[in-house]
Formats: sequence, structure tokens, C-alpha cells
Amino acid sequence: LYKSFQEIEEYILNNNIMKTIALAGSHDDDALAAVVNARRKGVVRAILIGDEEKTKQLLTSMGEDLEYYRFIDEKGEAEAAKLACSLVKNKEADMPMKGLMPTATFLRPVLDKIDGFVIPQGLISQATVYQYEKEKRLLIISDCAINIAPVYEDKFKIIQNCVTLARQLGNECPKVAVLAPVEVVNPVMQSTIDAAMLSKAAERGQIKSCIVDGPLALDNAVSAEAAKHKNIRSQVAGCADVLIMPDLCAGNIFTKSLVYFSDGLSSGTITGTTTGVIMTSRSDTAANKYNSILTASIQSI
Amino acid sequence: LYKSFQEIEEYILNNNIMKTIALAGSHDDDALAAVVNARRKGVVRAILIGDEEKTKQLLTSMGEDLEYYRFIDEKGEAEAAKLACSLVKNKEADMPMKGLMPTATFLRPVLDKIDGFVIPQGLISQATVYQYEKEKRLLIISDCAINIAPVYEDKFKIIQNCVTLARQLGNECPKVAVLAPVEVVNPVMQSTIDAAMLSKAAERGQIKSCIVDGPLALDNAVSAEAAKHKNIRSQVAGCADVLIMPDLCAGNIFTKSLVYFSDGLSSGTITGTTTGVIMTSRSDTAANKYNSILTASIQSI
Repeated sequence: LYKSFQEIEEYILNNNIMKTIALAGSHDDDALAAVVNARRKGVVRAILIGDEEKTKQLLTSMGEDLEYYRFIDEKGEAEAAKLACSLVKNKEADMPMKGLMPTATFLRPVLDKIDGFVIPQGLISQATVYQYEKEKRLLIISDCAINIAPVYEDKFKIIQNCVTLARQLGNECPKVAVLAPVEVVNPVMQSTIDAAMLSKAAERGQIKSCIVDGPLALDNAVSAEAAKHKNIRSQVAGCADVLIMPDLCAGNIFTKSLVYFSDGLSSGTITGTTTGVIMTSRSDTAANKYNSILTASIQSI
Repeated sequence: LYKSFQEIEEYILNNNIMKTIALAGSHDDDALAAVVNARRKGVVRAILIGDEEKTKQLLTSMGEDLEYYRFIDEKGEAEAAKLACSLVKNKEADMPMKGLMPTATFLRPVLDKIDGFVIPQGLISQATVYQYEKEKRLLIISDCAINIAPVYEDKFKIIQNCVTLARQLGNECPKVAVLAPVEVVNPVMQSTIDAAMLSKAAERGQIKSCIVDGPLALDNAVSAEAAKHKNIRSQVAGCADVLIMPDLCAGNIFTKSLVYFSDGLSSGTITGTTTGVIMTSRSDTAANKYNSILTASIQSI
């Protein structure tokens, strides 16, 4: 069970688990800088797919030796994305990464019904892994970036995706809190209806390898004291490992609040595929980008 | 312009602005402790309405002298709430405060169409005032506790309520960010539709005494660097004073994340009434409760 990104890094370094990134659209200073940083720390190799000349110029300007990389000259965006996926499917690389291209273009070959990745639950979702300093452990928060208004069936799959990620992070039976603004069932709040249904479904064995409880408000999910104040009897309240967001508005604002108002480290990742997929954003910090590469590496083992 | 709760406290103490709380349901250790704390700091007086004997016992057990208070023996919850409101309407007190009773019981006389408080916009809303340490200023966040799924018209009023609060806190023309998960207009995301409408309405002079912009994601609303990364040209992006939440799920989780994952001070308050109204929650910290009393005092001047 990893309790910090540093522990993940140590595991990768000590066990020589160096995964290979297939960077699609490699002539991108931002994504390339993240790859170079991770390469220098010794946690990844990379195949750089894009405008080869521009990519090499960028590497040289970063003082990076070209010999560490394999280059594929492909200037087309869709083609580069497709190539990155093919390399992963052929086991020449372990995880695709988005470079200079729109998200939709990058994800199209990943999600392709015939040639794409294996997506066990039929839904991909985003998860933020947050290093909760106060309690020295990692929290998984989902979905903060992909599914706009997940209904019950989507949240069901988002939980399954998070459980897979939690297990990859060493947690065999994660405690999943389904969040709402309150901890009581209220028929005018859809988030509390979904939460009640999901808890019961897990109790009936419909969702496996985890303990699910909700509705829970954020405070009773993460603070044992707050849960006690409200007299909540729950195996999850106060000690949740996974926080399922009511919708994208809540997830997105929450995860950004962690970045801008707390000092904890975090990573963003894609869940629901059988291998890691890396999509960093220009506005992510360097630490966040590095942690995303670490997380995707663990997802690709 | 107050930049911290300490500045509000100093203003109240230096200008002898000691407001009188009418505590409804005073035989409540938790609310009473908050009143005693504020009384000892010299920022309020209080009239204690409830079970007089129990209230006096509680005060004595806190080592508090009874002579500082006026007592009204009223054991009925609805009656105590009504009495607290009457005292404020008669100018014998300045702001009602919720003690031992359900929120609905406490708010009923406040919202009463005939005998209740003046509610200029016809809607009350909750606001969290957050002391943003990094930038040494106060942020207003709304609504995190009352309006479940505010539609355009509700958000319009929530903005007006926040503008009033911002002015009470010394900000004559607050910058209001209407939040969504993204900063672009997307017809499948209602939060971005509302935000576009509200920005334009403000531009046309329909919302006064403020600058409104949205949709903005949380990062581009509060971080100038994030706004720059996205090439957003806006008078609000990166320097928002007021953050309007898409709905209660987002507002509630965001405000709780500030309490549990950041170390900043905050207060919760009611906006939309012409006087302060204090409703602290048992799970609030002592500092939060004190700051709520300070905020309500400033709203009652």
C-alpha cells in the first residue's frame, strides 16, 4: 500500500520497473519537459512521435541527450495518436501520453471499439490521486474531468474503475464514500439517491472488492471527528479511501481547490483502461505532471 | 476593505460596535460556548432565549458570569425563534442566532412573509467567507448550504446577495466569477450557460455594482497564472472576490475542502437579509464560529 508518491517512485526505482511512454505529438515543450524530467529521474523511457526535427530541437534546448529516445517522424495528429496506441498494443510501449493535439484526437484511437484499448467496464473516467498529508495516505477522487453528469450506471462504473486503481496502489478493499452535500437521504437531491442505491448495490455484492457508503458529506467522509459529531455509524465515514463526486462541477472544483488552496501533492490519471494513459495539462505543476507519470506507470504493471 | 477576520475584529473593537445577539434555543452547550467566547473577546452582547435554568447552569459550568446576559425563559422552540426575530425587529437585539432547534424552525419566522425580515432580493442564500492567506484577502463563496439547484434567476439573486456582503466588507465593486468545470461555453453544461447569461446580464447593467465574468473554472478564477495559461482576457479571471458555485454539491464540497484540506480561516453566514443571521454548526471549529459572529456583526451595522 503506497502512502505517498515518493513511495511509488521508490518502488519503481528499486524494482527496476521502467515503463515506456509513447508520446503522441512530441513537438510540445510542455509535455516533453515532463517526459524529460521523469527520464532524468530514471522512472521512464519514451518513444517520441511527432515532428522529429522540432522534437529534437526542443530536447537539445533542454540540454537533454537525444540518445535516450526513439523517434518516429509523424506530423499528423490523428496518425501520431493512432501510432502511440499501436505501439502500446504491440507491447513496444506501455502507456500513451498526450502531446500537442486536442484531447478528443488523442483519445479517439484509445476508445476505438475495434482497435482501441481494453475498457473492462465500458467507461473511462478521470481520477485524481491526492496525497493527504494530515493522514499520510493517498486519496482517490473521481470523476473530476471526463464524465459531465454521471447517472447511477456511470457512477457504478466509476466506482469499479476507482477500485481497480486502489488495488493497483496496494489497497485490496478500498472504502468508497459516495458524496453529496448532506449525509441523509433526500429525494430532492439526486446525489443522495444515487449514493443510497450504490451503497445498497455494494452491500448486495453487485460491486465487489470494496466497501461503499453514502450519502456522505465531504467532512464526514474524511474526518472521523465530523462523522462522530453527526453520529454516523459507518465503516467508511471518517476514513474513506475513494471519494465519488456527485458530478463534474463538484469534482472539478474540489480537485482544483486541492491544488490552489492546499499544499498537498496530487496526480491526475485516466481509469477504466487496462494500461495507464497520461494526459497532463499545461497548467499542471511540474510535480503534478511527474506524479501523473508515476501513477500511470503503476497502472501499467 | 477588510483583508482578514482579525481586521474585522479590530474594527469592531476600536469603533465600539458591539452588536446584540438574540440566541434562540439558548440551552445548547455548543451555540452558547460560541456566544461566551465572543462575549469574552468583547465583540457582542447577548439575549438568551430558551430554558433559563438549563442555560444558567451551562453558563456557570463554563465559568461565565450571568450578569452579562439578559435571559428570557421560553422552552418552546418555535416560540423562542419567533421571539428572537421580534427582538431584532424591535431593535432590542441586532441579529438572531440559532441554538438548540432544527434549522427549519429557526428560519420560519425569519422568512415569514408578513412578520419576517426584509429580504430585498426575495431569496436568502448562504455564503462562506474564506481568508485566502496566499493573497491576504477575503473571498466570498456562495451558495454552499441553502439553495440546492439554483437556476439562472436564483444565481442572479445569489450574486446580488454576495455583492451586498462584499460591500459590507468594504469592497465597493467586487469581481464576481461564475464557476463551471471549464472556462468555455458548452451547451451540454448548464453551469456554463448560466455563467454566460449572468456575465452578459451584468454587462448590460442588469446586475449592478460589480463586474461579473464566467464561465470560469476555479483555477482561472483565483490564479492569474492559470488564467494566463488559458489566454483568458477578463477583468475577473485570476483576481475574483466572489465565487458563485454551480450548485449545492459543488459549493458544499468546495467549502468543506477548504476547512479540511487547507488551513485558512473561514466563516459561514446568511446573505439576503437586511441584518446578520447566525447559524453555526456543531462540527464548525471554534474559530469558524467566532468568525461567523464577526461577519454577522458587520452585516448588521
